[in-house]
Amino acid sequence: MMDSHIHTSGDTICAISTAPGVGGIAVARVSGENAIEVVQRIWRGKPLDKMKSHTAHLGTLLDSHGEPLDQAVITLFLAPASFTGENVVELGVHGSLFVQRELLNALMGAGARLAEHGEFTRRAFVAKKIDLAQAEAVADVIASNSRAAHRIAMNQMRGGYSKKLSMLRDKLLELASLLELELDFSEEEVEFASRQHLLELAQAVHSEVTSLHGSFAHGAALKQGIPVAIVGATNAGKSSLLNALLGDDRAIVSDIHGTTRDVVEDTLEIGDYLFRFMDTAGLRSTTDTIEQIGITRSLKAIANASIVLLVIDPADESVAETYSRVAEEMMQSQAKLITLVNKSDLNPEQKLEFIPQTVTQIAISCVTMQGLDTLRQQLSDTAKEISGNNTADILVTNARHAEILQHATQSSSRIIGGLTAGLSGDFIAQDVRETIHHLGAITGTITTTDILTTIFSRFCIGK
Amino acid sequence: MMDSHIHTSGDTICAISTAPGVGGIAVARVSGENAIEVVQRIWRGKPLDKMKSHTAHLGTLLDSHGEPLDQAVITLFLAPASFTGENVVELGVHGSLFVQRELLNALMGAGARLAEHGEFTRRAFVAKKIDLAQAEAVADVIASNSRAAHRIAMNQMRGGYSKKLSMLRDKLLELASLLELELDFSEEEVEFASRQHLLELAQAVHSEVTSLHGSFAHGAALKQGIPVAIVGATNAGKSSLLNALLGDDRAIVSDIHGTTRDVVEDTLEIGDYLFRFMDTAGLRSTTDTIEQIGITRSLKAIANASIVLLVIDPADESVAETYSRVAEEMMQSQAKLITLVNKSDLNPEQKLEFIPQTVTQIAISCVTMQGLDTLRQQLSDTAKEISGNNTADILVTNARHAEILQHATQSSSRIIGGLTAGLSGDFIAQDVRETIHHLGAITGTITTTDILTTIFSRFCIGK
Repeated sequence: MMDSHIHTSGDTICAISTAPGVGGIAVARVSGENAIEVVQRIWRGKPLDKMKSHTAHLGTLLDSHGEPLDQAVITLFLAPASFTGENVVELGVHGSLFVQRELLNALMGAGARLAEHGEFTRRAFVAKKIDLAQAEAVADVIASNSRAAHRIAMNQMRGGYSKKLSMLRDKLLELASLLELELDFSEEEVEFASRQHLLELAQAVHSEVTSLHGSFAHGAALKQGIPVAIVGATNAGKSSLLNALLGDDRAIVSDIHGTTRDVVEDTLEIGDYLFRFMDTAGLRSTTDTIEQIGITRSLKAIANASIVLLVIDPADESVAETYSRVAEEMMQSQAKLITLVNKSDLNPEQKLEFIPQTVTQIAISCVTMQGLDTLRQQLSDTAKEISGNNTADILVTNARHAEILQHATQSSSRIIGGLTAGLSGDFIAQDVRETIHHLGAITGTITTTDILTTIFSRFCIGK
Repeated sequence: MMDSHIHTSGDTICAISTAPGVGGIAVARVSGENAIEVVQRIWRGKPLDKMKSHTAHLGTLLDSHGEPLDQAVITLFLAPASFTGENVVELGVHGSLFVQRELLNALMGAGARLAEHGEFTRRAFVAKKIDLAQAEAVADVIASNSRAAHRIAMNQMRGGYSKKLSMLRDKLLELASLLELELDFSEEEVEFASRQHLLELAQAVHSEVTSLHGSFAHGAALKQGIPVAIVGATNAGKSSLLNALLGDDRAIVSDIHGTTRDVVEDTLEIGDYLFRFMDTAGLRSTTDTIEQIGITRSLKAIANASIVLLVIDPADESVAETYSRVAEEMMQSQAKLITLVNKSDLNPEQKLEFIPQTVTQIAISCVTMQGLDTLRQQLSDTAKEISGNNTADILVTNARHAEILQHATQSSSRIIGGLTAGLSGDFIAQDVRETIHHLGAITGTITTTDILTTIFSRFCIGK
């Protein structure tokens, strides 16, 4: 099913692999059968074709006019012992924009072409250095911005996820071969494998596939930030809370997450987890249409949240009513509720009687910052608890995989149905093959150029 | 004069050396006597202390909790064959912000500390791998944003400038020793070196120091952008010209120069040169005070420019008057004048009679873009011409050097004065020593901690 276009792309590609912008150093990567020959054309130093793999050399790189461009350290990785499996040359240069631009010009003049998004990783996949799930994890590792997200991506990149899928595939292959035996000898009316054993195999596969698929909601939350809805009556102090939480870390947040400040939601790393805070409109009984829309949105945020922070001003008369409303709304959701009794600087610390013992209450003040550390700890603990509740040892974070796994839960469910209904083996075998096909689409044993292009287009250039 | 604090800083430093932000890969550098030992503590792979210099190794880096952080390629550069002259380890990791941050945490946990601005280069200077002028050029290479600026910085980094200063120093040392001889044997009334020879030596030094000092105006212009004033009557089309010039390249400009768009001036790379365009208020006879201030600024821009673009609308009645006014203003300056006869789409191409043959006239249109390529070529040629007129083969681009060179022109001038006036050798020797001292302050043979701190604080972290 692999397109021939991919197999033959043995030309030499180049890119700046370090972050865009000015830095102390920048690193360009060149990959391809002729990578060393191409770099040699713009190199004054030891002859690169005589050098061993994994060695570094100081010399001078020339620009496209043959003039000295920069002093550089070049490192060689000879095929197949390189990231792409091809000959790879890494060029460490001074990180000026001029040098970076001219170096690419010089490399293009010497016979390389600019790499496309993710093309180095794509070549690693084509050379079978890594499977598709591992390749996709490379982009996830680069995009990770919390310890939890990083761990999942690293595990996937190192092959933990692929191993799990491979074990499922082995079970399905066993199922397929037993069904085939049954078919081959069906006329002799000998039952080689008991249907009960087949059913157990199918149920094991279905259960694991379903568990993997079910882990996506949490996996995606860990990757993009655990959704936290901040709700409460108007003026209870929801925005102040958000500002106080972001407070000192605001600079760090902008630094790390870049453009997230442009959207209404704010993300913040607490402990090992990334949280995505949704500030919502105030809850209040109202007949005003516009305000009603805001409240509907509030309630929707609760439905989408993993954690709900209910901010309460104990001096507010309708406080019990607000609590009931939120508690009622949360009956439908699996989210965890944390109640924050705000304005503890104005009101002496008090437990609100109408809130059940089982619901966490924290007295906070966005003025004195009292209770905020307790809240941070509680958020981190709750995130850990949610993660712990997830029975899958592997978390799916990739929407493409989740979609495929959904198909796999359906086809594996049909295997069980077929076995239970006592259908003929050849009908069941079709669903087994389909399930194998689905799992193969995740690891890339079965794929198309279109899918690959879609996957790698979300990579950065130079990776 | 070297502070002991610098000598003893043999501790292990670390930093991310690539540009800040997310990239395919990021590179951390670790330098110090114990660099290898420090990295080994967070490394799972081949034992680094057994590996040769200039070799690269694939393995796993651990985070500060001892958990696997990332797959990494580590390259070793053993003292003294490294940039800093110390043991240096370069760690190539996935370029996520999480990995970059955790890697620094892990390195700090393993015994390194965060490097200060330019501390790697400073160590290279302290280890006498490079002199101070070369060290300063490293920052210039990284900041260069045109071919011309890059060339000057590269030449300085590779030691061209230092060699020139060293030759001047040799002449001054010869002068000093000849004066000493004269003093030692003065009672015997034997004139060992003719004063004429001493005078020739002193004049040669003075002439070269003066030429170097004089090159700063042009060197600084090449580095920061050759100043171009756009002047002309109100509505002659000055802003349209600037927009047309920046036009297609605007995205590239923002990309390359980052924040320059925040200031009133715009910079643009044309050919090998960077130009700094100053759009000015319209020239017009006026009694209005506010407008008069604008016009005064226009005239000041002419005084500060290397090139003046006079934009003329030939349909304007007061066009000859405007020309005279600018021409008069330019009598005082060394700037080159280029006259642009604008709106060539409305008016047939025509030469304006009142403009002398010696002044370049180009018909342009910011609507049809006619003439803009000619203008770009003219700007590039003029910049080359200005560079060619500069007699110094080395251009000074550093304000610190320019200030020191000014002192050196004065002290070398006093040597000539003393010799001409027939002063005693010991008076003259004092000025010779002072001149040697000045030149030594550029290359860093004589320096202080304060000066070094000032110089390296403008470097980026990780270089």
